[in-house]
Amino acid sequence: MMRNVLLKIQYDGTNFHGWQRQPEVRTVQGELERVLSKLCACPVQLDGTSRTDAGVHALGQQASFKGDFAIPADKLKFAANNMLAGGMNKLTVGDIKILEASDVPIDFHARFSSKGKKYIYKISNTRDVDIFRRNYTYNVADELDIEAMRKAAGILVGEHDFKSFEAAGGTPRLTTVRTIYALDINARAGSHGRELEIHISGNGFLYNMVRIITGTLVDIGKGRIAPDDMQDILESCDRTRAGHTAPPQGLYLAEVYY
Amino acid sequence: MMRNVLLKIQYDGTNFHGWQRQPEVRTVQGELERVLSKLCACPVQLDGTSRTDAGVHALGQQASFKGDFAIPADKLKFAANNMLAGGMNKLTVGDIKILEASDVPIDFHARFSSKGKKYIYKISNTRDVDIFRRNYTYNVADELDIEAMRKAAGILVGEHDFKSFEAAGGTPRLTTVRTIYALDINARAGSHGRELEIHISGNGFLYNMVRIITGTLVDIGKGRIAPDDMQDILESCDRTRAGHTAPPQGLYLAEVYY
Repeated sequence: MMRNVLLKIQYDGTNFHGWQRQPEVRTVQGELERVLSKLCACPVQLDGTSRTDAGVHALGQQASFKGDFAIPADKLKFAANNMLAGGMNKLTVGDIKILEASDVPIDFHARFSSKGKKYIYKISNTRDVDIFRRNYTYNVADELDIEAMRKAAGILVGEHDFKSFEAAGGTPRLTTVRTIYALDINARAGSHGRELEIHISGNGFLYNMVRIITGTLVDIGKGRIAPDDMQDILESCDRTRAGHTAPPQGLYLAEVYY
Repeated sequence: MMRNVLLKIQYDGTNFHGWQRQPEVRTVQGELERVLSKLCACPVQLDGTSRTDAGVHALGQQASFKGDFAIPADKLKFAANNMLAGGMNKLTVGDIKILEASDVPIDFHARFSSKGKKYIYKISNTRDVDIFRRNYTYNVADELDIEAMRKAAGILVGEHDFKSFEAAGGTPRLTTVRTIYALDINARAGSHGRELEIHISGNGFLYNMVRIITGTLVDIGKGRIAPDDMQDILESCDRTRAGHTAPPQGLYLAEVYY
């Protein structure tokens, strides 16, 4: 009988050429399809919610696949995690972990059935660089004005044309209008200076949209762009008006909403 | 005029084939010598305190080098860190950082002048594996009896022949007698289960000694070895009596004493 299985997946993007399957290079989709095909004894094609770029992490990516196979979803999760961690060698941990696996209705699709997503962007705001977090946060040495960043962030919440925050090179879209449900900036003292987390949720995101919004907010925090300019940047529909693209290593796909 | 410069260095050992210079592969000594030779405009040969293995980290490695060069020590530190971080691209952080650089007397030697060292070994004791820490801690899923581990650890403190805790393949030594100044096990609740830190300081360490002591303590924590057996293991001077060798990614060279 044809089944449809949905996976919730965590991964450390550092050593992957992104999510999407590509010949000759290590990708998250490629790794998962290889392992799942072996366990299901049939060729598995995964549909992921988000095609994360190289270096981008996931705390809760979702992906579904269809097939006629016998292994129960919970056993699939257990066996796949074991293979992903390099088998029974308990001295090592893998860089992909399946958090949940469950059978879903046959017409469910990880991407098309999604109502939105949440991303988290992590910034270490300190001159005291923590080399052990270099693949997991964006290190910004200059002091950031969090209140200015929050003021500008508020302008982006709601339904807008986000063309100013879209990088070239993505999949062509019918519209660049998206809705941001919430955009919050949390700051706390960490072991190495101040740690910022930008939480951003919305019904959909354009190519590199979260990284360009973050880069623009960082430029505002540094005083290079005035917070009030955010309105003009948004309305201009011109990528060159927005700030820099924040690097991939601070970005986490946190949650997919259904 | 001939100078002698001492460096205090931090590094993430994940992407290095250890400290020691080797042809064709990336090592910490090799990277540092390349950068320092350029800045000093003379061939630099570093003497490091500890030849850490592949995957082992350092919070406070020390290394000295001699030469006749003009650049002041503080400028050397600044310029070297800039080169190690990939130049002026502020979006990236390097995996080596020089914490201190200072001129020292000409007869000072980073290794031979050292009175001892401190290592920290980090363990994530949880079934809820944190893939983002896989290169920075040893993940142990089975619950560990910390009190049993502490009892056994106490037996090792002081001057003993540590031959049971020496791996084959290291530099031959005149004696396998060493003094452990302190061996403490700290446990606290972390974001993913319990986090353990084993702090061990001594006047010197045999090849893989900290990792074999840690592996033995973990085996005791799991109940595979009785804590009282530690005395017999120590006195046997027989490597096969001790426990497994804990993996490199949990080990940090924390401090060098002068």
